[in-house]
Amino acid sequence: MSDYKYLLLERDLPKSWYNVIPDLPAPLAPPLNPATGQPADPASLEAIFPHALIEQEVSGAPSVPIPEPVLDVLRLWRPTPLHRAYRLEKALGTPAKIFYKNEGVSPAGSHKPNTSVPQAYYNRQAGMKRLATETGAGQWGSALALACQIFGMECMVYMVKCSYFQKPHRRTMMECWGAKCIPSPSDQTQAGRKVLADDPECPGSLGIAISEAVEDAATHKDTNYSLGSVLNHVLLHQTVIGQEALAQLKLADAFPDIVVGCCGGGSNFAGLAFPFVPLKASGKKIRLIAVEPTACPTMTKGLYAYDFGDKSGMTPLLKMDTLGHDFIPAGIHAGGLRYHGMAPLVSLLHREGVIEAISYPQLECFEAAITFARAEGIIVAPETSHAVACVLDEARKAKEEGKEKTILFNLSGHGHFDMAAYEKYLAGELTDYEYPQEKIKEALAHLPKA
Amino acid sequence: MSDYKYLLLERDLPKSWYNVIPDLPAPLAPPLNPATGQPADPASLEAIFPHALIEQEVSGAPSVPIPEPVLDVLRLWRPTPLHRAYRLEKALGTPAKIFYKNEGVSPAGSHKPNTSVPQAYYNRQAGMKRLATETGAGQWGSALALACQIFGMECMVYMVKCSYFQKPHRRTMMECWGAKCIPSPSDQTQAGRKVLADDPECPGSLGIAISEAVEDAATHKDTNYSLGSVLNHVLLHQTVIGQEALAQLKLADAFPDIVVGCCGGGSNFAGLAFPFVPLKASGKKIRLIAVEPTACPTMTKGLYAYDFGDKSGMTPLLKMDTLGHDFIPAGIHAGGLRYHGMAPLVSLLHREGVIEAISYPQLECFEAAITFARAEGIIVAPETSHAVACVLDEARKAKEEGKEKTILFNLSGHGHFDMAAYEKYLAGELTDYEYPQEKIKEALAHLPKA
Repeated sequence: MSDYKYLLLERDLPKSWYNVIPDLPAPLAPPLNPATGQPADPASLEAIFPHALIEQEVSGAPSVPIPEPVLDVLRLWRPTPLHRAYRLEKALGTPAKIFYKNEGVSPAGSHKPNTSVPQAYYNRQAGMKRLATETGAGQWGSALALACQIFGMECMVYMVKCSYFQKPHRRTMMECWGAKCIPSPSDQTQAGRKVLADDPECPGSLGIAISEAVEDAATHKDTNYSLGSVLNHVLLHQTVIGQEALAQLKLADAFPDIVVGCCGGGSNFAGLAFPFVPLKASGKKIRLIAVEPTACPTMTKGLYAYDFGDKSGMTPLLKMDTLGHDFIPAGIHAGGLRYHGMAPLVSLLHREGVIEAISYPQLECFEAAITFARAEGIIVAPETSHAVACVLDEARKAKEEGKEKTILFNLSGHGHFDMAAYEKYLAGELTDYEYPQEKIKEALAHLPKA
Repeated sequence: MSDYKYLLLERDLPKSWYNVIPDLPAPLAPPLNPATGQPADPASLEAIFPHALIEQEVSGAPSVPIPEPVLDVLRLWRPTPLHRAYRLEKALGTPAKIFYKNEGVSPAGSHKPNTSVPQAYYNRQAGMKRLATETGAGQWGSALALACQIFGMECMVYMVKCSYFQKPHRRTMMECWGAKCIPSPSDQTQAGRKVLADDPECPGSLGIAISEAVEDAATHKDTNYSLGSVLNHVLLHQTVIGQEALAQLKLADAFPDIVVGCCGGGSNFAGLAFPFVPLKASGKKIRLIAVEPTACPTMTKGLYAYDFGDKSGMTPLLKMDTLGHDFIPAGIHAGGLRYHGMAPLVSLLHREGVIEAISYPQLECFEAAITFARAEGIIVAPETSHAVACVLDEARKAKEEGKEKTILFNLSGHGHFDMAAYEKYLAGELTDYEYPQEKIKEALAHLPKA
């Protein structure tokens, strides 16, 4: 009888983060100062980020040591288990071997604490007493709430309004950890008030919530801003996932032909996939697949161009796959995948052909999640269901082709706070959204001139 | 740096269940047939239970082998981790060492699948196609839904009405696993219709829901009944918890002075504590503490007497600590602890002084849970918060006495489906309930004559 789970001990926790920057096939375009069009001075970011994180953002070192106090928190739940999905394989009748890395075992229920913990740590070290952030589905907001509580800081979360009302229990979770959470757009910031003046019923977006949180950080003493995805240092922190997975696959005497992750801002996908980039570069045949929703097809239908990270243009310009910062996504339940942009590192690797992107409609993703839950027990987050849909497709292809492929995916979070979405799916009340081509054109026409 | 988590491999899963019956200090009173007052014939239970489980119910063997197909499901999440609560110890400034066994990592989020899986297995082996059951807070209903899905059976869950509306997402979880869940009292059974005729607004109770599920099983072909606590075979299945904990404590080079579990029907407490009973009998100094709510003080204020397990008197009479089968508990949020009776095995050990019982009010339990969440990250179920409250008390006593006690408790489930309760607690909207002495007298006056 083979094992279902491959476990590492706390002493096997990676001691450093893997930095993909030295392994990129082309140089990363620098962030630009929107006023001058010139590369942004890293020092200009010090109004909202601590020095240590800015250093990591621009570091060209192949790896960055993880501070002991950060490791000491991560090991509350890390290393996370790697599962072999025998029951799913059997249910599908596929010759493929399917593995998944279960990041849902963190106290906040997703991979997000992998970066919220170091971010809170470095900010505390820098003397900050409070962090402001945005959250979509609430995974990131809860992760930062947890990390701030652990390091004795206040936490202020601007939660995208439609998610705030879809998922009231995420707010309570944040409050259990001592954070404050309000719906965005709010009347607490100029950015929020401006949106509300134009459209009092605005359901919000990650872009708007980022504007609010950045403004909050810039206008409050002892407060910094914290971002849950997109930026280089965030993706860096997530690479503990892929490093652990590599060690666990060795225990399982396996190596993946395909690595899959859902992709909103890019952090859980990058966390799993980036440590495989140098192996691919050195000749290993391996496909790295980023899965996004058809309702927010950043990589599959967007442009690779300079754009703002937020709605109101407060952030530096980032070169990335984008649908335009004016983009307001449809209210799909994978709130964490409703972002107009994509991490510059993921975007570059996508444009260079190192990774592939594919989009799936919401209904197929929920169907895949139910198949997974009935085989493996775990009910995944709607975001994660996008990875599952792609894995099922690849496993079925392997069956048709009679090939014994090995597939690895990131189970980025559980769906315990998404039961209202599952309820609607099971009641047949959900629909698919495809972002219309003309709307994409319109939003892309408003890209800033870099 | 010492470890936070003590892990076992799948091959270390206990291969048999520990049976406490041969180690009891006094004989267990037999269940009685209510019509005759004579010991119930085990064969009379075959209308609702499979033979294998009835055998386990009355077995005097010191251990019972776990079938391979059951082990094969348990290892989807077992062995569960044993955590050392260093951060909680530090927050309390206690010299006590605190360990907790995390049963919240199962797909259903609690210890309940430890018994739902073997119960579904034995019923499937016996040719059953459908199981009927009751659930309070929904932990048990989801666990049985999961197990039935795995073994290809239908599952029908009668959920106590007040919990059904407090926790709608538990129903959705059960539906994700293919089960049907309706509020009890329902119009689907005679028992339910009778209660509704007397009181259309009845919030329900576990006793009523049991009556409905037993009737469903007795009146449907190919349907059996399944119970999530109280009975000997259920407690037997839970002993994987304590057996694993013993092996993990050895890894940690520790042995508990105090073992704590919350107690509703008794299964999670027994699962952790029973394997310690023979060690205590052989001279180890160890306190086994069962914690119940003041709103349902079965052990601390009830009688040790023969009573029905359900509201309408369909079950055999069990000798147990009871508040009377007419008992309708206050609507506290620890739905799993709102049962009028207590497992006969736990009751006997309580009356014989092998285990202690203590009750805690709801507000202190939520306060303890918040302290725990802010130190250890994990937000526990309201049921589990009762164990946490007792652990905090013991850890503070250890501090006052300057003693380095070792405390072990069962983190029986997470609170992801209990955020509405936490929301009310944080908003100051919860109150304590103490079951009035005169009401206890009244309910106990209606005990059946054995």
